[in-house]
Amino acid sequence: MKLDKALGLLREVPDFPQPGVVFRDLTPVLADPDALRAVVDALQDKIHPDTEVVAAIESRGFLLGAALGYGWRYGVVPLRKPGKLPAVAHRISYDLEYGTATLELPTGSVSPGQQVVVVDDVLATGGTAAAACALVERAGGVVTGVSVVLEIPGLGGRERLAGRSVNALLAL
Amino acid sequence: MKLDKALGLLREVPDFPQPGVVFRDLTPVLADPDALRAVVDALQDKIHPDTEVVAAIESRGFLLGAALGYGWRYGVVPLRKPGKLPAVAHRISYDLEYGTATLELPTGSVSPGQQVVVVDDVLATGGTAAAACALVERAGGVVTGVSVVLEIPGLGGRERLAGRSVNALLAL
Repeated sequence: MKLDKALGLLREVPDFPQPGVVFRDLTPVLADPDALRAVVDALQDKIHPDTEVVAAIESRGFLLGAALGYGWRYGVVPLRKPGKLPAVAHRISYDLEYGTATLELPTGSVSPGQQVVVVDDVLATGGTAAAACALVERAGGVVTGVSVVLEIPGLGGRERLAGRSVNALLAL
Repeated sequence: MKLDKALGLLREVPDFPQPGVVFRDLTPVLADPDALRAVVDALQDKIHPDTEVVAAIESRGFLLGAALGYGWRYGVVPLRKPGKLPAVAHRISYDLEYGTATLELPTGSVSPGQQVVVVDDVLATGGTAAAACALVERAGGVVTGVSVVLEIPGLGGRERLAGRSVNALLAL
């Protein structure tokens, strides 16, 4: 399937998670095996060839990251919300629009010098992605880029990730 | 990589999530591309050949389910905790050891008659897996089986899923 057709399956849901926001729902893309393959392969096209590991952000990043890992032979490292991992190597807290959030990196999952791509579904303010990059670097990993399906421009995500290779399949 | 070697990477973490429990951590398996492939392909070996869709249970089931979906051309349907999905077709609540939990199935993701395998990392009491099967059936799907990496025997999981095809790579 062509990428355009696959991304055409993204479903717009108005007023989620709050009034006035249009949520782009990846569910119909995942549910179609050909669309899933087209999207994952398009992500792969932009990943730096030295990359060894996918750091996948909980939870939707897990879906994309694991597919990339299986299909293109990367190790997969889940970056998780607090309390989920039994053994935590590094932890980082960061600001959200309201309040703060925390991501944790599992013990023994990223080695010093390893080349790591950060994967998530959406890039908005970039807070989560920036935290994920910092977490990988705290373990000695080298971030080769940030790959997402959808970028929401105008929220400062790219600015927050300045100096990094940021790759989005779609911006809207 | 042989499956035995891949499963040998499972890490035992004592006293997580609570004292006296030994948690089997899948993280080192995921972090190794060959081990990830061995585990996912072994899951695939036991999936009924008519299966069209993987219903993946949040969150660790996402990692296995998406890898299966990409590698073996299944549609992937995430079964999510409440408040995460923008459009919910069906919702089910079920009892946990203490309290209750809820799983939600996204709108338009399972069609009547579709053949669906439920995938998660661990089978323990079977409460979550049974709820996942019920949710798929509420949408008209046909459950072809339940596939997990690890079964913890003695907690009644298999009994709770009596009559279903339950496949675990390892029981301990």
